[in-house]
Amino acid sequence: MNMDETKLYSWFLGPKAENADMLERLVLEALRDCVFWRRNFHPEDDIIITEKCKREDAFQDSQALVRQEFLALLANLKRDIPFYSPRYIGHMLGDQLLPAIAAYFAAMLHNPNNVTLEASPITTRYEMEVAQQLARLMGYSGETWGHITSGGTIANFEALWVARNLKFFPIAARDAARALGVEEAPVTLPTGETINLVIADNNWPLLNLDTDEALNLRSRLYAAYARRRGDLSQTEIKKQVDERLSAYSISGKGIQRFFSELRGETVAAPLALVPATAHYSMQKVIEALGLGKEQIKMVPVDSHFRADVGALREILLRCANERQPVLALVSVLGSTEEGAVDQIHRLVELQAEMRTRGLAFYHHCDAAWGGYIRTLFFDREGKPVKTPSAIREITQTWPSDEVFQSFSAVHHADSITIDPHKLGYVPYSCGAIVFRREEVKELITTEAPYIFDGEERRDRPFIGRHILEGSKPGAAAAACWFAHRVVPLDQSGYGLLIGASIRSAQELCYRLGQELAPELAREGIILRILTHPPDTNIFCFVVNRAGNTSLTEMNRINQAIYDELKFDPESVIQRHNFIISSTALTFNQYGPKESQRISCLDEHLAALGIPAEEFEKVGRMKTLRSAVTSPWLALSRGGTPDYSAAFADVLKQAIRSSVGMISG
Amino acid sequence: MNMDETKLYSWFLGPKAENADMLERLVLEALRDCVFWRRNFHPEDDIIITEKCKREDAFQDSQALVRQEFLALLANLKRDIPFYSPRYIGHMLGDQLLPAIAAYFAAMLHNPNNVTLEASPITTRYEMEVAQQLARLMGYSGETWGHITSGGTIANFEALWVARNLKFFPIAARDAARALGVEEAPVTLPTGETINLVIADNNWPLLNLDTDEALNLRSRLYAAYARRRGDLSQTEIKKQVDERLSAYSISGKGIQRFFSELRGETVAAPLALVPATAHYSMQKVIEALGLGKEQIKMVPVDSHFRADVGALREILLRCANERQPVLALVSVLGSTEEGAVDQIHRLVELQAEMRTRGLAFYHHCDAAWGGYIRTLFFDREGKPVKTPSAIREITQTWPSDEVFQSFSAVHHADSITIDPHKLGYVPYSCGAIVFRREEVKELITTEAPYIFDGEERRDRPFIGRHILEGSKPGAAAAACWFAHRVVPLDQSGYGLLIGASIRSAQELCYRLGQELAPELAREGIILRILTHPPDTNIFCFVVNRAGNTSLTEMNRINQAIYDELKFDPESVIQRHNFIISSTALTFNQYGPKESQRISCLDEHLAALGIPAEEFEKVGRMKTLRSAVTSPWLALSRGGTPDYSAAFADVLKQAIRSSVGMISG
Repeated sequence: MNMDETKLYSWFLGPKAENADMLERLVLEALRDCVFWRRNFHPEDDIIITEKCKREDAFQDSQALVRQEFLALLANLKRDIPFYSPRYIGHMLGDQLLPAIAAYFAAMLHNPNNVTLEASPITTRYEMEVAQQLARLMGYSGETWGHITSGGTIANFEALWVARNLKFFPIAARDAARALGVEEAPVTLPTGETINLVIADNNWPLLNLDTDEALNLRSRLYAAYARRRGDLSQTEIKKQVDERLSAYSISGKGIQRFFSELRGETVAAPLALVPATAHYSMQKVIEALGLGKEQIKMVPVDSHFRADVGALREILLRCANERQPVLALVSVLGSTEEGAVDQIHRLVELQAEMRTRGLAFYHHCDAAWGGYIRTLFFDREGKPVKTPSAIREITQTWPSDEVFQSFSAVHHADSITIDPHKLGYVPYSCGAIVFRREEVKELITTEAPYIFDGEERRDRPFIGRHILEGSKPGAAAAACWFAHRVVPLDQSGYGLLIGASIRSAQELCYRLGQELAPELAREGIILRILTHPPDTNIFCFVVNRAGNTSLTEMNRINQAIYDELKFDPESVIQRHNFIISSTALTFNQYGPKESQRISCLDEHLAALGIPAEEFEKVGRMKTLRSAVTSPWLALSRGGTPDYSAAFADVLKQAIRSSVGMISG
Repeated sequence: MNMDETKLYSWFLGPKAENADMLERLVLEALRDCVFWRRNFHPEDDIIITEKCKREDAFQDSQALVRQEFLALLANLKRDIPFYSPRYIGHMLGDQLLPAIAAYFAAMLHNPNNVTLEASPITTRYEMEVAQQLARLMGYSGETWGHITSGGTIANFEALWVARNLKFFPIAARDAARALGVEEAPVTLPTGETINLVIADNNWPLLNLDTDEALNLRSRLYAAYARRRGDLSQTEIKKQVDERLSAYSISGKGIQRFFSELRGETVAAPLALVPATAHYSMQKVIEALGLGKEQIKMVPVDSHFRADVGALREILLRCANERQPVLALVSVLGSTEEGAVDQIHRLVELQAEMRTRGLAFYHHCDAAWGGYIRTLFFDREGKPVKTPSAIREITQTWPSDEVFQSFSAVHHADSITIDPHKLGYVPYSCGAIVFRREEVKELITTEAPYIFDGEERRDRPFIGRHILEGSKPGAAAAACWFAHRVVPLDQSGYGLLIGASIRSAQELCYRLGQELAPELAREGIILRILTHPPDTNIFCFVVNRAGNTSLTEMNRINQAIYDELKFDPESVIQRHNFIISSTALTFNQYGPKESQRISCLDEHLAALGIPAEEFEKVGRMKTLRSAVTSPWLALSRGGTPDYSAAFADVLKQAIRSSVGMISG
């Protein structure tokens, strides 16, 4: 055990609540601190809840009721899932950092609301600091914008909301410029050519500006209009420009009027390019924004479940040729089912290539899961690491060069979703969104930006005006901020912790693939790891009986295995051994697409002995799945139990009995 | 003190943390219960965090860091606002129920995620129960749908999302029916006439179906298609109908394609009718849904800040005549700034009148603030009260007959936003939305409803599929559920508590209006209560120097008063006496609209001696504002201090010095 690893043991309550005294101490400290804070505010005021009152029957009855019902509540909660245990390797859930729990509780006692600094003088500042830290963690520099959300879905929502408003913003800017009598406003197209926005009659080039260029248009219009109207104050210039921009934008007009009143050639509804592995929230988000579920173009994935770059290139070429606007490309850093990491660096190259063809689009990265894994990319001094080997000291075989490059290119994305309540190990609800450029704020702000000039200074933020949500728990910001304070966002902190979880997943995979699979093969059972090696700390596997060519039967086998290893709230918790999760990979999502002749599962199906055509026929492949968030599996190797050996044993029994049962 | 009131004293930690022992006991109980729950799960497993490890320097250093930084955190939090104090009568914020804090903490230790029952076996059930309770509280019966949200904004978002998809659903249903070869599908128009959906070539009547009729179309298509295709199974019927509905709907096509491919006459972009007093989140929501901020038609309000029914009628008549579709009417039960209550019963009448003219629309009620006030409308046995006098026993002069009728008509709304983290006195984040009809779920569900038939049974909900958000804290559901368990949703529980807060607000208003105002008048100072009497527990007031006719100067006076009574995080907390909030009523929102010749503020401005035209010129009126959530002001009358007398005194000094300063 090295010194750093020893620290890690102090960060959690522990599978046996070994650090119970520490949590109790902090919680009591927070509670008593709040108690005496209350007593020190106007101590001259009467005690309202008197000791006499407390002795009344009605008071005592009421307290008795609370205590009685509280015991019932605690009893009910015992049917909850032991996420904290190394034996839980199911969904994307685990234990929370002990300091984060304590900080959440401490701040909750004060009831701050981060909708505005006026209702949360401390925790709104914490939130802004957290957003800065996460932006830096992603490799962003300069003036960024970000904040905490209730979760990854709302974060993805805001990113696509910005992308939608930005896509059509240049058209609004042109119309506003004309209405304001501006004669000249230069705009540089991604091909390098510069045109005058005001006389741009074609809509297509305006729908294909780089994000940066589109974001610069507002200030460029301010300047152009100021040249024309030297008689107006700067505030009045901004006011008039903003009003026109709002009136001509999709934000002001709405999608229906924007298009029915569009000048110039008609514009096809834009596509959102989303990997087949993307979280189902992308569908919700695109639909809710009024863009239409059918406008989602699913990008096929390869057998590693990463966006297929070749297929994406063909889609993009077709879009360029057919003048089909692309709203946004979404990449995924740690897919929900497989933990797969898209090759961000290659997507970025592709984006650059498409620019030369006049096709430009927004790039959002959904790193809800993978965001915190970037902490492994900073050394103990917080400096960026240059090579994968500097990470492999912690995580052994991880990352592959490919995965290293993907994580290293994420700062090219225009926005990134990161969920502190996932691999940030802080309590719900704590998601986050960070944007590369601060100016995006103005695209979704409730009131025109000029209004804020006077009222809202940078140091007195009213977050609710710039985001989707309103009221939000200051306690979540405090918990996340405090977690970052005591667990650094580099290899001496989170990197160590997440590194251990990745090592655990890699080891489990190795054991299943290299030890258990050969053993089962001798018994006529096929165990196929779909993620070998896993891109992160999630892995998937499927079992079949050798000789079985029916996908339906294989699905039944895996369902039976899952039934043995799932969490069953109707069963007492002590009866659970190891707990995993499962998923169904559907033909709709994972079937062959575009130019793909074969599906990303064909290779896996072949190894399992299932004919490829079964996939389309049956429609889904039941898959077993483990997300490993616990650091303890790797750290307790050789103990009792050796968790990875014990899991392999339990799994072996479940596989044998399920295969036997289904075939019998 | 009656028996019920005595109970109330046990529900809070107390302004002097008088019930500290109770909270400490519950929190410790929860913590230790969780500790030993952990120890009882596989007790045979090794202790991972060993006592030996705990003695290592690195471990001790790490713990010391956490403790040190925690003290710093607690010190920082002392700059938070004393929301718990009777001296805080500012924003919509107060203390939380003691049992709710304890329950939140207890559940948080288990880290449940209410995205799906699989990650929260207990708390997802609590959430569904809470939704049912709130639906019943609103007066809904039958099969309703509802859930907890991160706050009121997301709740409003979902309501308008449903309204958007529902408005255009009948057109999608017609196109789907045709594509499926259905020949007959009867639809009843709000005028009573029945038409055949399939041959309805005009879009206008289809945009004007009653909510219930539009919601019935899906099952009617199932039946019609089943008659045509007796060869298909029920599942296949549903599948095919749902697929067509999705393909032809705004949900599938997106707004842009829906309208560019619309058959029949063109359709004007629909208007959302929203009272001028509505929360700014309505703007965000309408914009984010792609409907356009300019499609919001602000309904003017009267001098009580309630939607002006006459003006609304004119707007609606014009819509009917000009075939301008109305997306939704939003009503407000407790406006953010003024606590004003729209006359829901009269809006409902108006809606019925418009139906006879062929104009139908969705009705959403934003009761984020006022929802829990409905607890006063159920007696101690939980039976609905029949007359206002049955409430006045608790709240004396409140409610007026008008306000009583408004609250009594809320069940006519198609959906209602209610925030448990406001007058439910539970920790953030806990908003809620309830819908009158369960079928609305299908309009915004991520996957087609038929998919769930097999997979998702009613008793195993996967909430994340039917709502905007994904991951959400099970702890919030537990806190709300537990609060409802020990504080009944009627006059013996919340009604008592909220009744005391309303009584406090009424008393403060009376004192300011009837005692302080005459006294100040003798000194040449005008104190005008804008909300006399307040519709709920929020009131607003404005001060002027007699003879001053400048709104700018009056604004300066009120700003100065606010500066005296605002919370200043830079100042030590002990220096604060009473804390209020302020707002600015803008001409844009509160100026005259539609047929109004005068603004809702004219009467108030006249009383303050400010010429009406000043409002337009200056653009805003600075207003002082108090939301009273504390029950203690009313309950501690005659104590030391008598809070309402003390507040009047403090205010008097602040007014005198501010008027003197500004005029000097």
